[in-house]
Amino acid sequence: MNYFSSSFKLGILGGGQLGKMMLYDTRKYDIQTYVIDPNPEAPCKIACDHFEEGDLMDYDKVLQFGRNVDVITFEIEGVNVDALEQLEKEGKNVYPQAAVLRKIQDKGIQKHFYSDHNIPTSPFKVYKEKDDLTEALVRKEWEYPFVWKSCTGGYDGKGVSIIRDEEDLIPVADTPCIAEKMIPFKNELAVIVARNPSGEVKTYPVVEMEFHPEANQVEYVICPARIDSAVAKKARELAVKVSEAFQHVGLLAVEMFQTQDDEILVNEVAPRPHNSGHYSIEASYTNQFEQHIRAILDLPLGETESKVGGVMVNLVGEEGYEGQVKYQNIDKIMQMPGVTPHIYGKKQTRPFRKMGHVTIVNKDLNEARKIAEAVKKEIKVVSEK
Amino acid sequence: MNYFSSSFKLGILGGGQLGKMMLYDTRKYDIQTYVIDPNPEAPCKIACDHFEEGDLMDYDKVLQFGRNVDVITFEIEGVNVDALEQLEKEGKNVYPQAAVLRKIQDKGIQKHFYSDHNIPTSPFKVYKEKDDLTEALVRKEWEYPFVWKSCTGGYDGKGVSIIRDEEDLIPVADTPCIAEKMIPFKNELAVIVARNPSGEVKTYPVVEMEFHPEANQVEYVICPARIDSAVAKKARELAVKVSEAFQHVGLLAVEMFQTQDDEILVNEVAPRPHNSGHYSIEASYTNQFEQHIRAILDLPLGETESKVGGVMVNLVGEEGYEGQVKYQNIDKIMQMPGVTPHIYGKKQTRPFRKMGHVTIVNKDLNEARKIAEAVKKEIKVVSEK
Repeated sequence: MNYFSSSFKLGILGGGQLGKMMLYDTRKYDIQTYVIDPNPEAPCKIACDHFEEGDLMDYDKVLQFGRNVDVITFEIEGVNVDALEQLEKEGKNVYPQAAVLRKIQDKGIQKHFYSDHNIPTSPFKVYKEKDDLTEALVRKEWEYPFVWKSCTGGYDGKGVSIIRDEEDLIPVADTPCIAEKMIPFKNELAVIVARNPSGEVKTYPVVEMEFHPEANQVEYVICPARIDSAVAKKARELAVKVSEAFQHVGLLAVEMFQTQDDEILVNEVAPRPHNSGHYSIEASYTNQFEQHIRAILDLPLGETESKVGGVMVNLVGEEGYEGQVKYQNIDKIMQMPGVTPHIYGKKQTRPFRKMGHVTIVNKDLNEARKIAEAVKKEIKVVSEK
Repeated sequence: MNYFSSSFKLGILGGGQLGKMMLYDTRKYDIQTYVIDPNPEAPCKIACDHFEEGDLMDYDKVLQFGRNVDVITFEIEGVNVDALEQLEKEGKNVYPQAAVLRKIQDKGIQKHFYSDHNIPTSPFKVYKEKDDLTEALVRKEWEYPFVWKSCTGGYDGKGVSIIRDEEDLIPVADTPCIAEKMIPFKNELAVIVARNPSGEVKTYPVVEMEFHPEANQVEYVICPARIDSAVAKKARELAVKVSEAFQHVGLLAVEMFQTQDDEILVNEVAPRPHNSGHYSIEASYTNQFEQHIRAILDLPLGETESKVGGVMVNLVGEEGYEGQVKYQNIDKIMQMPGVTPHIYGKKQTRPFRKMGHVTIVNKDLNEARKIAEAVKKEIKVVSEK
């Protein structure tokens, strides 16, 4: 139980921005870290104690990496779960557990998990291949419009399409998929749940994803969500129910829909620090990365409430720009009160690539929201000419 | 002016805990860093982009290091100022400037600077050697009791003694020194001032050092100080006056005494992030390390006010323990609300060595103060048996 300035080794699979932010907290606690990532220029390379280049889907590589550390965690779901299961058999603590990852890596399995555990989720069907889906539509067993999701490999909106008619279906891949009923939701919400091996559970406040009225893209993550307190209570309770069903250790980010009738449906979960929790670095008593570390090391969980209101804006590559990144007007947004840019360290921008995020905190959430709009208008992720 | 994910190089002289905490923010902004420190196991070694082992007092070493970077800063005052001056001559930006360091490295020069600039400070005399002081005492030109300070090399209470009689004088070193009149102060206060090359100036709220009633050691740094608002205003104004006199770029921590008559006297300054500002990581809108980086890179200064009340407790090595460090009961303090331990990463403890600090934040400052007391009672920095 002595992690601080000791010979204890924490292994992290994945060296992207989530890992990078997690390393601020392993550094704060002086916990020794080992990171593996296929990219030799991964943002985590600096700030971890030992960096190794390697394919996270490679069974032998992950096994070897895991055998050398004391506790294993990950910052990305695309890792070899067989290797993690083997490591658990050998007595290693893998947190979140391999079984949790197994349940969520395939969206079909994940959806069935919800219905099996009586967790409200949108109606769905799973199809082994595209033809099966097409046939179901012909036979009227399933109907337009719906949301198509690839069972595996989806990330940041990839592998997800809204299908309104036959034509929309043409470009989708021929992979195992799920078809979900479209939910005309009032709000998209998320709750992060932390759970440690001793069974201590804490939820963060409900956050709200505010969408751009035209582009239908999340523009702002807002904490706390501007919703009725009864709805917020229901969402937090449902998140705890999901957490108990998974019996995960570490963080579980639960994405949810608030329907027109104020029902809460679970959309999907991520067993790791999550984009919807980035606001916590500046706004919460315990940020999500520190909380994840506390949880997986069976330390007491920290306070999840907020010091101040928080709004998060993603920094994505501007359309029409590719190459060496430049953060236009970053000095202008740094003049605004309570504004903190986070630059992930990717040197090359391309359209819609997640390059960083900006957090805006304020005692008055509405004021934070206004400043967030000014931030979004000002800053542009472009490339050097 | 493009520092973010660019080829810009920031050089930091010194790789201790202050540098380590500064690197959280250079990482956040993805600013490339070069660090030099004599200790190959310096806490900064991880998390900087390039680490070099070297003596900070070595003219050639510092010159060579500085020539290779674009802007130079430091996290410790004990560096070769001649080399910094030479670098400035060669057109490098050294922030805080060599001239500032020159004025504060020698406490005699620093005290004269205050009197020359009409900055209130305790009455003092400068002596070239111990004999001169002894003679002055014999001739009644100076009298007991007083505070003896070595002109150079003092740090964390070293090189400072309270001299009540002849006997107290025996162990003090034969070095250039200052003798200061003892000020029976109500409070010891500090204000951190940030200033950028464009001349933008911001002060942090006044913090208060609360002393242990018997041991006469600082136990808690409390922000905001529990003092009259008129006194706080006066302290902040005086800190700005000191800042203007130095014309520094970067942070300037101004330590002050509040006398029995509510006069404010400047004790000494440090042109860098400071122990009295550690609370800002959790409590302030802009922490002192990010502020220092903003200032030296001529970026807009961030908001200095606090989100919540903050109390800081230093973690120092327990008496009677030496060797591989162990943080006893750290899990117990992590159960307390709003408590964040910072572990600097020194593997070996020894009595009174600064090993880390703990910040306690709370919307209610009195509550934070109470929890801080519980923290102090619980945690012990000991060694493995």
